[in-house]
Amino acid sequence: MAPATPQGTGAIAVLRLSGPDVIRLTDELFRSPAGKLLTDAKGYTLHYGELRDGEELLDEVLVSVFRAPHSYTGEDAVEISLHGSPYIMQRVMEWFSARGVRPARPGEFTMRAFLNGKMDLTRAEAVADLIEAETEAQHRVAMHQLRGGFYRQLQDLRRQLVELTALMELELDFAEEDVEFADRSRLTALLRNIKTEIKRLIDSFSQGNVIKHGVAVAIAGAPNTGKSTLLNTLLNEEKAIVTHIPGTTRDTIEDVITLQGIRFRFIDTAGIRQTDDHVEKIGIQRSFRKINEARLVLWLADALRWDEQKDELRQRLADFKTRNPDQPLFLLINKIDAADEALLEKIRRESASMPADEVLFVSAKHKEGIARLEEALVRRFRTDDADAGATVVTNIRHYHALRNALQSLTEAEEAFAAGLSTDLIAVDLRDVLQHLGEITGEITPDDLLEHIFNNFCIGK
Amino acid sequence: MAPATPQGTGAIAVLRLSGPDVIRLTDELFRSPAGKLLTDAKGYTLHYGELRDGEELLDEVLVSVFRAPHSYTGEDAVEISLHGSPYIMQRVMEWFSARGVRPARPGEFTMRAFLNGKMDLTRAEAVADLIEAETEAQHRVAMHQLRGGFYRQLQDLRRQLVELTALMELELDFAEEDVEFADRSRLTALLRNIKTEIKRLIDSFSQGNVIKHGVAVAIAGAPNTGKSTLLNTLLNEEKAIVTHIPGTTRDTIEDVITLQGIRFRFIDTAGIRQTDDHVEKIGIQRSFRKINEARLVLWLADALRWDEQKDELRQRLADFKTRNPDQPLFLLINKIDAADEALLEKIRRESASMPADEVLFVSAKHKEGIARLEEALVRRFRTDDADAGATVVTNIRHYHALRNALQSLTEAEEAFAAGLSTDLIAVDLRDVLQHLGEITGEITPDDLLEHIFNNFCIGK
Repeated sequence: MAPATPQGTGAIAVLRLSGPDVIRLTDELFRSPAGKLLTDAKGYTLHYGELRDGEELLDEVLVSVFRAPHSYTGEDAVEISLHGSPYIMQRVMEWFSARGVRPARPGEFTMRAFLNGKMDLTRAEAVADLIEAETEAQHRVAMHQLRGGFYRQLQDLRRQLVELTALMELELDFAEEDVEFADRSRLTALLRNIKTEIKRLIDSFSQGNVIKHGVAVAIAGAPNTGKSTLLNTLLNEEKAIVTHIPGTTRDTIEDVITLQGIRFRFIDTAGIRQTDDHVEKIGIQRSFRKINEARLVLWLADALRWDEQKDELRQRLADFKTRNPDQPLFLLINKIDAADEALLEKIRRESASMPADEVLFVSAKHKEGIARLEEALVRRFRTDDADAGATVVTNIRHYHALRNALQSLTEAEEAFAAGLSTDLIAVDLRDVLQHLGEITGEITPDDLLEHIFNNFCIGK
Repeated sequence: MAPATPQGTGAIAVLRLSGPDVIRLTDELFRSPAGKLLTDAKGYTLHYGELRDGEELLDEVLVSVFRAPHSYTGEDAVEISLHGSPYIMQRVMEWFSARGVRPARPGEFTMRAFLNGKMDLTRAEAVADLIEAETEAQHRVAMHQLRGGFYRQLQDLRRQLVELTALMELELDFAEEDVEFADRSRLTALLRNIKTEIKRLIDSFSQGNVIKHGVAVAIAGAPNTGKSTLLNTLLNEEKAIVTHIPGTTRDTIEDVITLQGIRFRFIDTAGIRQTDDHVEKIGIQRSFRKINEARLVLWLADALRWDEQKDELRQRLADFKTRNPDQPLFLLINKIDAADEALLEKIRRESASMPADEVLFVSAKHKEGIARLEEALVRRFRTDDADAGATVVTNIRHYHALRNALQSLTEAEEAFAAGLSTDLIAVDLRDVLQHLGEITGEITPDDLLEHIFNNFCIGK
């Protein structure tokens, strides 16, 4: 048993119970006005009545009855709709507890649904993602997975792998007899197809990560180039939805903006410059670490100090690009409101050759060029262009399993090309199946299951 | 429509809709796997299916269907059990909103239940009390009221009043003819009975207030007598349930302990002594205000400084008792762990004549005598000895209406005794009925209704 509704005071609170004995047990507490028993009730029916602990009236309630296997968990189940008072919930749970009903562990109802064959692991994990979805893209991806989109794709891969194994074995059996086997082209096509599909799933993780966790954007630059002003301007734009979430490390606060359905996590950094000051050096090292971890960097330059700073700027951008060739870098020329046209023209000319992916001119203070900056950010991480029917991998567990599957598949391919024995190739192909099976839960160690469902909320 | 579950992320969230068109409208969003329509469903049934906004899948849900008049509001009603994601709730509410469904005001469902004759006001108000109940006594009183206990009592009073009116009119009609009317004794008995019952209800309010709001206990005394130590000791007792609630005034925090089902709100005060310091004087004035507002005062004295402080102490206690003769005052002799037996004997002798309701010896630091103090507190405010079937008035609105009813009844009695005309007495008796009718909602102005239901939570 577990409360299925959030903690706190509300109009109603729902207590969910699942197990072979829960309907009979609820009858001991529940009295319908007509004296009917829940034990006699059909599934998917609602019953109004009182909960009475001996003579004491605990609440007037609605009870939903579900019959195995037609329930969320696949077991007999009861949901009691109580008045939304924490006191009543506590009293009712105490009553059941005294009769041997145990509080459910986080995610235990969904885990039982999985163990009872109601859903595979990808669907079970999608339940948690769906509940946590805050944007349209998160909702869409979780819903696709909940509906079995990913599961069907994995089943399809599995079928292809079984066929591939058969073809490889046939090919190798005949190889010794020097017969050119007719289905060679089918084998090659299958292998390519499987690899392509697994690779596409792996690649989708970078998009999935953006959808699930947002895009980490570091704001970098020399001191006093306007980094904090830019951050504030971005946060104060009317169309931006601003939230503050605790950072994952060291209790830092990151500012999150949702632009056109994409979450951007902005990370301010300490100003970067040459210094002999020990404390400042530590701050700058930390800035570099944040910059390297970000998905995209906004590097600010001060238009009014262009000549003075441009050489160091060029060097720093080049260093960054050498270390992080795949990480997008936007150069933002700030304070354009105070620069005259001749200076801007000069900067435009000289910045064109800077090693940055885009150069944008802004005034953080006067909110000039901010809309263009936001468009550039959205354009680079747009996800809703993606095929709505395609699976996007958002779960790091799935990502690792897919990488392992691809690795084993590549080894099988190499072993096959090298003409190694069927036994050796079979081991590799079995590994591929095993890794895919881990994703759906067909082959999943118990401790992994515990770990997966521990991340759920209570009552699901 | 309104969410019926608390805000936040949980396993499920329930959206409640009520009105003549909601079942048909939900059919436009809902698709059952078998293509069945909710419009064809019986009341008290559950339906599994999808919510689809056009082609977009919003969620997989359970829908409860209720048919007028067999629903909470008395109207057709639907409850949709969604996955507990704020995003999904928002999307679904937006869908209904675009089709003219309005978010419910706080308490609107219960207000409709009242307006549709499903419950009177005392029961409607009990719903809000029940949801907020945190102790057994609060729960018991709210449940009694929800079950119509108070309502039946008021109906009974009403019947007696109607009979009384008839008897008074008869008596007055015959008075002019100098006939001794036979039912005079019946009239007197009725009048006494009604008065007694209304008085009992009014008196129960002081107990009801304790049940609903807890007992405000001020901790007073000279500086350094151990007031804060006592508070901490009380809060740290294992058996005490400690909660922190924001005070009703000036954002002060009061510490609440529930002892044997009774809530005590402890209020620490600044030390009281003679002083010329302006700022300290203000603090002491504030202490006096808190002490005067409390239901009970714990006045601490330092055993080790007894001789030095006893005269001022006696004077202060006497002053307090003069100003607040009905307010219980406990004198606590603190620091007894450091006092020798001779000193304690002396204090025992001298404190016996102090103007305090109880004298208790404690060591706040060493937790001596604390259990006895708690027992003394509980004994004075015990409520569970009260007849479990009796109505306890907890609502200040009911309290005022009862006081007004008693006032009008007294006026009717006096007018009758003075032999005034039937018309005049009828006005007074109609006032009594009017005041009682306000409690049940039979006679209630619209703006009062708004005010009552505004205190409800959303979704109820």
